[in-house]
Amino acid sequence: MRILIINGPNLNLLGTREPEIYGNRTFENYFDELRELFPQIEMEYYQSNIEGALIDKIQESQGKFDGIILNAAAYAHTSVGIADAVRAVDIPVIEVHISNTFSREDYRHKSFIAPVAHGIIIGFGLKSYELAVMYFNNQK
Amino acid sequence: MRILIINGPNLNLLGTREPEIYGNRTFENYFDELRELFPQIEMEYYQSNIEGALIDKIQESQGKFDGIILNAAAYAHTSVGIADAVRAVDIPVIEVHISNTFSREDYRHKSFIAPVAHGIIIGFGLKSYELAVMYFNNQK
Amino acid sequence: MRILIINGPNLNLLGTREPEIYGNRTFENYFDELRELFPQIEMEYYQSNIEGALIDKIQESQGKFDGIILNAAAYAHTSVGIADAVRAVDIPVIEVHISNTFSREDYRHKSFIAPVAHGIIIGFGLKSYELAVMYFNNQK
Amino acid sequence: MRILIINGPNLNLLGTREPEIYGNRTFENYFDELRELFPQIEMEYYQSNIEGALIDKIQESQGKFDGIILNAAAYAHTSVGIADAVRAVDIPVIEVHISNTFSREDYRHKSFIAPVAHGIIIGFGLKSYELAVMYFNNQK
Amino acid sequence: MRILIINGPNLNLLGTREPEIYGNRTFENYFDELRELFPQIEMEYYQSNIEGALIDKIQESQGKFDGIILNAAAYAHTSVGIADAVRAVDIPVIEVHISNTFSREDYRHKSFIAPVAHGIIIGFGLKSYELAVMYFNNQK
Amino acid sequence: MRILIINGPNLNLLGTREPEIYGNRTFENYFDELRELFPQIEMEYYQSNIEGALIDKIQESQGKFDGIILNAAAYAHTSVGIADAVRAVDIPVIEVHISNTFSREDYRHKSFIAPVAHGIIIGFGLKSYELAVMYFNNQK
Amino acid sequence: MRILIINGPNLNLLGTREPEIYGNRTFENYFDELRELFPQIEMEYYQSNIEGALIDKIQESQGKFDGIILNAAAYAHTSVGIADAVRAVDIPVIEVHISNTFSREDYRHKSFIAPVAHGIIIGFGLKSYELAVMYFNNQK
Amino acid sequence: MRILIINGPNLNLLGTREPEIYGNRTFENYFDELRELFPQIEMEYYQSNIEGALIDKIQESQGKFDGIILNAAAYAHTSVGIADAVRAVDIPVIEVHISNTFSREDYRHKSFIAPVAHGIIIGFGLKSYELAVMYFNNQK
Amino acid sequence: MRILIINGPNLNLLGTREPEIYGNRTFENYFDELRELFPQIEMEYYQSNIEGALIDKIQESQGKFDGIILNAAAYAHTSVGIADAVRAVDIPVIEVHISNTFSREDYRHKSFIAPVAHGIIIGFGLKSYELAVMYFNNQK
Amino acid sequence: MRILIINGPNLNLLGTREPEIYGNRTFENYFDELRELFPQIEMEYYQSNIEGALIDKIQESQGKFDGIILNAAAYAHTSVGIADAVRAVDIPVIEVHISNTFSREDYRHKSFIAPVAHGIIIGFGLKSYELAVMYFNNQK
Amino acid sequence: MRILIINGPNLNLLGTREPEIYGNRTFENYFDELRELFPQIEMEYYQSNIEGALIDKIQESQGKFDGIILNAAAYAHTSVGIADAVRAVDIPVIEVHISNTFSREDYRHKSFIAPVAHGIIIGFGLKSYELAVMYFNNQK
Amino acid sequence: MRILIINGPNLNLLGTREPEIYGNRTFENYFDELRELFPQIEMEYYQSNIEGALIDKIQESQGKFDGIILNAAAYAHTSVGIADAVRAVDIPVIEVHISNTFSREDYRHKSFIAPVAHGIIIGFGLKSYELAVMYFNNQK
Repeated sequence: MRILIINGPNLNLLGTREPEIYGNRTFENYFDELRELFPQIEMEYYQSNIEGALIDKIQESQGKFDGIILNAAAYAHTSVGIADAVRAVDIPVIEVHISNTFSREDYRHKSFIAPVAHGIIIGFGLKSYELAVMYFNNQK
Repeated sequence: MRILIINGPNLNLLGTREPEIYGNRTFENYFDELRELFPQIEMEYYQSNIEGALIDKIQESQGKFDGIILNAAAYAHTSVGIADAVRAVDIPVIEVHISNTFSREDYRHKSFIAPVAHGIIIGFGLKSYELAVMYFNNQK
Repeated sequence: MRILIINGPNLNLLGTREPEIYGNRTFENYFDELRELFPQIEMEYYQSNIEGALIDKIQESQGKFDGIILNAAAYAHTSVGIADAVRAVDIPVIEVHISNTFSREDYRHKSFIAPVAHGIIIGFGLKSYELAVMYFNNQK
Repeated sequence: MRILIINGPNLNLLGTREPEIYGNRTFENYFDELRELFPQIEMEYYQSNIEGALIDKIQESQGKFDGIILNAAAYAHTSVGIADAVRAVDIPVIEVHISNTFSREDYRHKSFIAPVAHGIIIGFGLKSYELAVMYFNNQK
Repeated sequence: MRILIINGPNLNLLGTREPEIYGNRTFENYFDELRELFPQIEMEYYQSNIEGALIDKIQESQGKFDGIILNAAAYAHTSVGIADAVRAVDIPVIEVHISNTFSREDYRHKSFIAPVAHGIIIGFGLKSYELAVMYFNNQK
Repeated sequence: MRILIINGPNLNLLGTREPEIYGNRTFENYFDELRELFPQIEMEYYQSNIEGALIDKIQESQGKFDGIILNAAAYAHTSVGIADAVRAVDIPVIEVHISNTFSREDYRHKSFIAPVAHGIIIGFGLKSYELAVMYFNNQK
Repeated sequence: MRILIINGPNLNLLGTREPEIYGNRTFENYFDELRELFPQIEMEYYQSNIEGALIDKIQESQGKFDGIILNAAAYAHTSVGIADAVRAVDIPVIEVHISNTFSREDYRHKSFIAPVAHGIIIGFGLKSYELAVMYFNNQK
Repeated sequence: MRILIINGPNLNLLGTREPEIYGNRTFENYFDELRELFPQIEMEYYQSNIEGALIDKIQESQGKFDGIILNAAAYAHTSVGIADAVRAVDIPVIEVHISNTFSREDYRHKSFIAPVAHGIIIGFGLKSYELAVMYFNNQK
Repeated sequence: MRILIINGPNLNLLGTREPEIYGNRTFENYFDELRELFPQIEMEYYQSNIEGALIDKIQESQGKFDGIILNAAAYAHTSVGIADAVRAVDIPVIEVHISNTFSREDYRHKSFIAPVAHGIIIGFGLKSYELAVMYFNNQK
Repeated sequence: MRILIINGPNLNLLGTREPEIYGNRTFENYFDELRELFPQIEMEYYQSNIEGALIDKIQESQGKFDGIILNAAAYAHTSVGIADAVRAVDIPVIEVHISNTFSREDYRHKSFIAPVAHGIIIGFGLKSYELAVMYFNNQK
Repeated sequence: MRILIINGPNLNLLGTREPEIYGNRTFENYFDELRELFPQIEMEYYQSNIEGALIDKIQESQGKFDGIILNAAAYAHTSVGIADAVRAVDIPVIEVHISNTFSREDYRHKSFIAPVAHGIIIGFGLKSYELAVMYFNNQK
Repeated sequence: MRILIINGPNLNLLGTREPEIYGNRTFENYFDELRELFPQIEMEYYQSNIEGALIDKIQESQGKFDGIILNAAAYAHTSVGIADAVRAVDIPVIEVHISNTFSREDYRHKSFIAPVAHGIIIGFGLKSYELAVMYFNNQK
């Protein structure tokens, strides 16, 4: 099983950005732990601040991955293009968010990706990714 | 660790109700499997079609459970009272939904519970409950 | 043919409640007349002020009735749960209202039940029920 | 008792137009059946695609008919003028729709005529007309 | 000076229709008085319940009249087409209404014609027409 | 017959303020003409930029005037208080506007005064006042 | 004078639930004080988390009480049914809220009960009840 | 204890203005009674139709009064400035309304003052003021 | 191949009506050119200002034409009836507009016809028709 | 160069009002500093809590000042009249706000003045005024 | 004549992405056919998933192309920046869409580009491009 | 003091793009002047049409600059991602716009950046940047 984790804008700052919301651990550090937890799963990680680069990545993963874990961050709320990319590939995509988007600003309550996602996991901190991996792992 | 699963209106019909959306397995049957999967966790299950009975149950779980997994079903979209009960207890409450509520009617896109939930898991079928249990299990 | 009439909140007060809108005849009295008019039909009548009790009743009628006449009253405008119950059973449900809901407050113009009802009859006073029975009667 | 049935735009195509929604029987054919069912009632039938012609017909029916059964079709959702005509005459007008307008496009959920109608019958197929006739018949 | 008065749907019923709102005098009767009051003005009167016929009439008045007094009634609130016709001719058009449309239903508060009218006179009963004629008369 | 003309904010600048919209004649100058046109009518004129001063004036006119011509200007769109004052006195109040408020900004399309006005005259330039006086004059 | 106090969902938790909003005193404790303050008034107290049970109670109080003090809590914002019950009985109902609902979430700003209440008292903590009793007491 | 009662626009007309809504007693007359009822409280009364004068008064009461009872009338629904003044002073301000604003026009359902008021009392007629005084009196 | 061009309200004025928007050429003149450009296609042209007449024409074209080019003008924005007629016939209907409706008033941005049209061509002046004919021509 | 600074409601309380938002310095004190900073500019300062007085002041400044710095405070969000006054004079008006209005209540996000202002400076504390003066100073 | 075709996000997947909506032909393959059909026109083709890259391309085409055919896909519905680029260049831009965007999700009904496009062609499949080329070709 | 100026999409075209709105001077030319005006400040300038590149730049400026002047242009109205980046860095960010965005299209009235900006300067042409630099300069 091969899983691709895609992180959207500003998630490269995890660990330093608004730690009261996002915690103070870098994603790289967390990603190492994740790999150790699931040694049987091939995991890759990609981050970009560019909407189109995220679309590119989703498109390219066709045939290369069995599942995508997508935290589109701010783009979840504004990008029809990323949602269209999710629609366009044959891979189940799980939408995750670190913070509880529903207890924040109104414009974070809507996600263009949610209606086309395989499933949605929100608000468990970095554990949101872990739950998504667990789901894929159980699907085997 | 003691976990209470609360199911809202019409979820007693799981297995027979709209199987193309909700699958054809009863929750009781699934609950047995869940218990086998997590023998170390004390799990209890409650279902009611009555909004106030769900509020009662949430209130009563204070001090008796370490976590609640709440699928309020239709009441997620209309009940301020259940959300107030979640606010009123000291137990982390995970909101789950079996189907992807965001790809259904508009009025299912809004949940009064989501902003006060500890986390939200949507659209994984019955596996949504399992992911929630896994989360609590990992918290130990 | 077996028909179940379900009346929602405050309809137990028919005959005394706002008679200028709802008339001054009790439903029990009217129900007797209805039975005399259609002796060939087995009719049962249920009323509750509790949303979840109405859901229970709709669920339990599966396999026991050939048609439901549902006046959910106030819950028609606020209950996703009752609408879900209507969706969940295999029995045709006719939504009726005694008064013309469209000439009253704005919030009475919307019914969650209407989109899943077999048909809708509004504004004929108690005769709304009679028309619904006639429809079922003709279906035989 | 004299009853006028008025059909609005595109209802002249009944039987050929979108048969999955409207059935495959012409209204003329159905009207014959209706007359046979209620030989004691004088029934007339009028159809036009022109909003103003429908207004004309409603106005002219004053003093000539004891009841109007009005399926304004598309104009129900857009015509203040027809609703004004209904207000202007002293004849009870029953609004009918063949299909369940509430399970179709949003713009079919609103009817300008409903608030001024004597009663509303929606979604019973051609039987909607029959129920309206029955109501008038019982009023005698 | 030649003035055309155009009345929209249901105004042919003036005198009989909802007299508590519109008074109990026919427009023909009032029109005679109007002519006597302004013998120096050539006045013509047209009424139709058909939106397109009103558009036709407005178009045809080009070159034949120096002013139009238009009570589009219900069509004021729904017809882009009549507003477009007003835009298309070179004649000043005064919009009049008999009743105070702003103290009635919400949908009567908006007029497509108002933004393209030369002026607007609302709520003076039949005197609304007289004020419009006075205005044109003073313009000479 | 005694008539009070009340002008709201910025109308003291008539003749200099945005002449392309409001013309280049002062209201004082126009008021003199108005008096000459209707020598039989006692006319008074009041202007203030202060919402509460306009309310005071409307209140004080009770018993002193037979009609009020009110151009509340900007306050027409924002003042519930002036509308309440109009409701509170027994004098017919005609709302007038110089420009066509419906062809300007959206927020000028709504008037709190309109629903409680005796009649409304909009868009005839300064002639709007004259038409209002004519109306009162004819009422005698 | 007999007064019934009805408390809606989650108010049984007063004293423990979100004490920074609702204070840390149980309602039972407060109710005792209230009775001492007004020994001349017969007071009864009822609480339920079930919408329909609250409707039942309001209906049953007809003829038994001279006044109802109703804190419907969350149901104030979502229940048409309770508002209908208030309409249906002949007893003056005062709506009270402990916290200032207008400085909290948007969905707490709207009350279905307010338009049919005899009066409304909001934001005085438990003193809100006392003011309501005082009002009834003065009415004697 | 010193209490200031501030009345907003048109409340100087109490007793004559729309008596079916506001009753037929002047506020001065009622104020005398209020003083007799609470001889131990220093009470002052101020009324103005001018929004800014009400703001001035609220500002000036700082340090002079222990409580303000504010019936901003129409300005409650439109004035951010008065609400800002309430925020700016250190005195508890109770918002009162004589009539039930929630059973009147939509624009009376919103109050800018409510979210910053110490408490809100609506719909008890002139008794609304008395309840507010009682509250302050009990606070001593 | 037989093509019917249907023009809606006010398009009979092309060439004289608002030439800065619609150009100064009559449709008749343009239609002649169109026929010369496509001698192999049988083309017919119909215009009416009456909504119902346009519906009639669309219905009648069934079996007589292989394609319809429909510029419903103002009715595109207000007519559910014409859209229903388009749905009812088996002929591909191309919606065209001469001007760019999206750069004009908000109410011209919505078309009831667009969702049921075979394709949509907007803003090319009279060339919009030509492109539609080209499309049909290439389909052969 | 002559500059008029106009402050709206409650800004006379600067230094004492909500110091966590507005700072704890009086405007008079700040104004002295401003004058020292720009000795070459004639500066005047006006404050009023009365909307109409602000309109008066803006009108009177015509011909007397080369620039206005306007902090309309609460009236920015509710006053069409002040915006009309800005439109009516020939002087460039810079809108300033001390706090960041966009990070406060929703109703502070809209300014009627902004669309007609020469420029807008928001959120720099008292420095907002200084930047506006600098701008005018550089324009010389 | 030189024409640039610009395709937005996910259109690189044409032929494989949701073929039931977009068909199963690659754009490259179609582009070859297009070139053969119009040998006299110099055509270039550009695709990117990056909003800013599309803006760059539009900017750079100034002076190099006589027309742009722009299918901005998802960005049509969300990008003000691309619309600004269209405004910024002197080249006529035709907006095209392959599918009928008006019969899909609501958020696809709005295009920021449409108001600034030279013309709009929607729903003809890949033929949409051909019609745009034809238009430019005829303009020569 | 080190200041970074970041310009968003299409601002590279300044001087040629819509000069009636944005003026006819290139930003490079203006930037030279700015540097001369503030020789004591280290200024850098960055422009990109790519949303994600702007996010990158804001992130990278952490620790390198003491202030950012951000004209996000079109992205101000649509980008949650840039606003998140502003939140994520510790540098004060001043939002500037060249034109008065509030007197243009509705969608330019909203800025996602404004609520998190240190201050906002709008509508002073290129001088908007200068005022922002002055502010930072005075902060030293």
